[in-house]
Amino acid sequence: MVKTPHDSLTILTDIVLPGETNPLGNLFGGELLARMDRACSIAARRHSHRIVVTASVNHVAFNKAIPVGSVVTVEAKVSRAFISSMEVYVDVWIEDRESQIRTKVNEGIYTFVAVDNTGTPVKIPQIKPETELEKQRFEGALRRKQLSLILSGKMKPQEATELKALFNS
Amino acid sequence: MVKTPHDSLTILTDIVLPGETNPLGNLFGGELLARMDRACSIAARRHSHRIVVTASVNHVAFNKAIPVGSVVTVEAKVSRAFISSMEVYVDVWIEDRESQIRTKVNEGIYTFVAVDNTGTPVKIPQIKPETELEKQRFEGALRRKQLSLILSGKMKPQEATELKALFNS
Amino acid sequence: MVKTPHDSLTILTDIVLPGETNPLGNLFGGELLARMDRACSIAARRHSHRIVVTASVNHVAFNKAIPVGSVVTVEAKVSRAFISSMEVYVDVWIEDRESQIRTKVNEGIYTFVAVDNTGTPVKIPQIKPETELEKQRFEGALRRKQLSLILSGKMKPQEATELKALFNS
Amino acid sequence: MVKTPHDSLTILTDIVLPGETNPLGNLFGGELLARMDRACSIAARRHSHRIVVTASVNHVAFNKAIPVGSVVTVEAKVSRAFISSMEVYVDVWIEDRESQIRTKVNEGIYTFVAVDNTGTPVKIPQIKPETELEKQRFEGALRRKQLSLILSGKMKPQEATELKALFNS
Amino acid sequence: MVKTPHDSLTILTDIVLPGETNPLGNLFGGELLARMDRACSIAARRHSHRIVVTASVNHVAFNKAIPVGSVVTVEAKVSRAFISSMEVYVDVWIEDRESQIRTKVNEGIYTFVAVDNTGTPVKIPQIKPETELEKQRFEGALRRKQLSLILSGKMKPQEATELKALFNS
Amino acid sequence: MVKTPHDSLTILTDIVLPGETNPLGNLFGGELLARMDRACSIAARRHSHRIVVTASVNHVAFNKAIPVGSVVTVEAKVSRAFISSMEVYVDVWIEDRESQIRTKVNEGIYTFVAVDNTGTPVKIPQIKPETELEKQRFEGALRRKQLSLILSGKMKPQEATELKALFNS
Repeated sequence: MVKTPHDSLTILTDIVLPGETNPLGNLFGGELLARMDRACSIAARRHSHRIVVTASVNHVAFNKAIPVGSVVTVEAKVSRAFISSMEVYVDVWIEDRESQIRTKVNEGIYTFVAVDNTGTPVKIPQIKPETELEKQRFEGALRRKQLSLILSGKMKPQEATELKALFNS
Repeated sequence: MVKTPHDSLTILTDIVLPGETNPLGNLFGGELLARMDRACSIAARRHSHRIVVTASVNHVAFNKAIPVGSVVTVEAKVSRAFISSMEVYVDVWIEDRESQIRTKVNEGIYTFVAVDNTGTPVKIPQIKPETELEKQRFEGALRRKQLSLILSGKMKPQEATELKALFNS
Repeated sequence: MVKTPHDSLTILTDIVLPGETNPLGNLFGGELLARMDRACSIAARRHSHRIVVTASVNHVAFNKAIPVGSVVTVEAKVSRAFISSMEVYVDVWIEDRESQIRTKVNEGIYTFVAVDNTGTPVKIPQIKPETELEKQRFEGALRRKQLSLILSGKMKPQEATELKALFNS
Repeated sequence: MVKTPHDSLTILTDIVLPGETNPLGNLFGGELLARMDRACSIAARRHSHRIVVTASVNHVAFNKAIPVGSVVTVEAKVSRAFISSMEVYVDVWIEDRESQIRTKVNEGIYTFVAVDNTGTPVKIPQIKPETELEKQRFEGALRRKQLSLILSGKMKPQEATELKALFNS
Repeated sequence: MVKTPHDSLTILTDIVLPGETNPLGNLFGGELLARMDRACSIAARRHSHRIVVTASVNHVAFNKAIPVGSVVTVEAKVSRAFISSMEVYVDVWIEDRESQIRTKVNEGIYTFVAVDNTGTPVKIPQIKPETELEKQRFEGALRRKQLSLILSGKMKPQEATELKALFNS
Repeated sequence: MVKTPHDSLTILTDIVLPGETNPLGNLFGGELLARMDRACSIAARRHSHRIVVTASVNHVAFNKAIPVGSVVTVEAKVSRAFISSMEVYVDVWIEDRESQIRTKVNEGIYTFVAVDNTGTPVKIPQIKPETELEKQRFEGALRRKQLSLILSGKMKPQEATELKALFNS
């Protein structure tokens, strides 16, 4: 079976409560990371129909502070499926109450592994990107996987053919 | 003023409560990310003596599940200081209750920026690594910073001289 | 300005954590009421572009238990706008992990009032229902408002013309 | 066995913490709904001596904002017992710290069902109201039950004899 | 003005949720200490009509484990008023769902200080115990205050006349 | 086996979030009691290698308010081991962000009991204090145990030989 990124789309819209803020009155980085992780894990579950566990956070960039009282929308979609692991891309938006204009504040990339009840990894469906952005993220996923393997010492830089090409071009 | 990584060492030891677990009975990835973020932000604050905000999560690998009731120790230290940003390395350990043997379950790399009361970045002290591991992490930090800039589209791969050397060797 | 119910659609998808369950291992009624309230308040805010406060919960029916680990989707839309108050309809779904079949578990009706910074009620945009279900809920809203006024002692049954018609038909 | 509403009286006095407030600095509607649900569920349990689950929220009116730091007293009592379901009335008060004068801020009506360990409804004791207010609430409960059945589509308006009488008088 | 302990009686009845338990499935000591502190602070506030802050916890004994799902009733009353500090006695009960028999599981003694908006201690009303138990606790309070002063190094044992009498009798 | 207090040293450094504060903007006494209890229970577990449960809080003094945004360090060490119970001493510090000077704000004494899986008390290792402060706390522990037994009515003042000596000297 082949699925699309849209099949796993997960939307988590919620308010920033005062108990979740830092001394500057903005949403705590850690609390946002937790919301993003929950949304990504649902997307990974929707793609794989399996129990999923967080394998790694590959990159999260905090571009803008999110003030208390904000309405935050977290949108997660599986960007690429490997054998039993999935890369999930997550975008975070806030909206201005008066103009209703949405601003992107944050973007993250997580990896999840699908497991059975004993925690053993299991095979998952493949994915076929549809939109331009989905295709771009799908293609970047292999390079990011190699990066992640290098960073965790499981691959040598010389073996990362996708990445080498990038730097030699 | 020059400080050492040890000056910023932050230890957060706490128990995994049932309310923080996933359906497999293990600590939720998102909850651990939040604890790591809080420990890292304290380390960054201890190094800079400033208010700090999370700029990015560069890499977090989840190697082992952490069951409910575990005693989890999160240890964070600034690994490299740039102009106003700092890389913070965080290691996570659990300990066996009977043997008291510690096992490393998780490792993460966060970046924080020191700011003043208005949120404007400010200059921070430099850092001088002491142990072998600290030196190794200090040296890797520049490569990781370039990676992060590339991933967020703020640098072209060809400009990342440190990284290019890595893949061409 | 006239808006549609879809303009205010708010989706809050999240997991049921063990800390939110009752002795039978199902999501606590009160925790679900809180999630529904937050989703409804965002829908009301999206319709009115204003600060909103909960005025009343008119009816919430709990049809099915929601076990721990469930993925719960709360969907809220403004169903009718009065002068400064809005009725918001909220539907709650769970999905089977393996079949991905969605089951409706809960339905609720909340009323919110739009206020300015001092807490004074302000005028809000009108609403024009589009789908069959939206039209049906729009029409029922006036009867429900009369019911609510009767229940809180602010209207006499004899004055509730919409309701009288219902029982005399 | 016949019991009285007072036998099930449940008092939950607690403080409004900053983490439970909305952008206006008042207790979040959803958090109050959760507290009311917990108090009502204890009252239902005290009446029935059984596990109880929330069946519906019939009506909750928010009359006054509850500022952070307030001492909130939630008082719940079973108002009427049916075969296996109970209506529970809950009143919410705040008190002025200096004058100690109590003000009623909120009132709610919940329905609970008593179940056994498998979730099957079980028979519960009957109830005999004592005070004037208890009698009045006892009598209104049947009309409210019919309303609830109509709202959830389980009864036709023409069959609701108690309610018809109300509107035709 | 003279007040009675009963004037400050504060009742906090609530359920033990799964997220508040230890690995044995019982309410965490720390969570119970927090509930007791909140109830005691309300009792101290009701006696003094002032903002109050916790000064010390003098003694809390945990006699019986409190399993998840329990209904816990925390009852706090001011036992003695000094110049600006108050001793508050708190009793904790659980009730058997089927028999409704109440069992005392815990008892604690806290001290609070009444302060104004700047945090400066202020004078509070005196107290007159009524029941036998209230009188007994009132009389013991002075000895406990001396103990507390000795333990914190603010009084020498030889100066604690009330306590000396106790041990010399 | 004989262990030292240092073997059980537990450090819990964390931030005071806005949701944990009282109306004066300082950390709630109850929340601090809960953090102290968790740190002490880990120290007791590290000493005994067993499941531990809180037996009593013997004394906690709140000397200084802890404002929101503070970095709070809780340090717990077993001060004396009896047959199956342990006294744990806990010190609480805050640090000034700019000067990094640490100030002691709070001190507490807890007692834990080591139990097996059925909750039955079990024998624990003995302890040998090393530093001057550890020796002083070790010696005081017996007097405090007698006090605790007297306060809970399990010992008569005349039998508390250690304490009598204190007051007669």
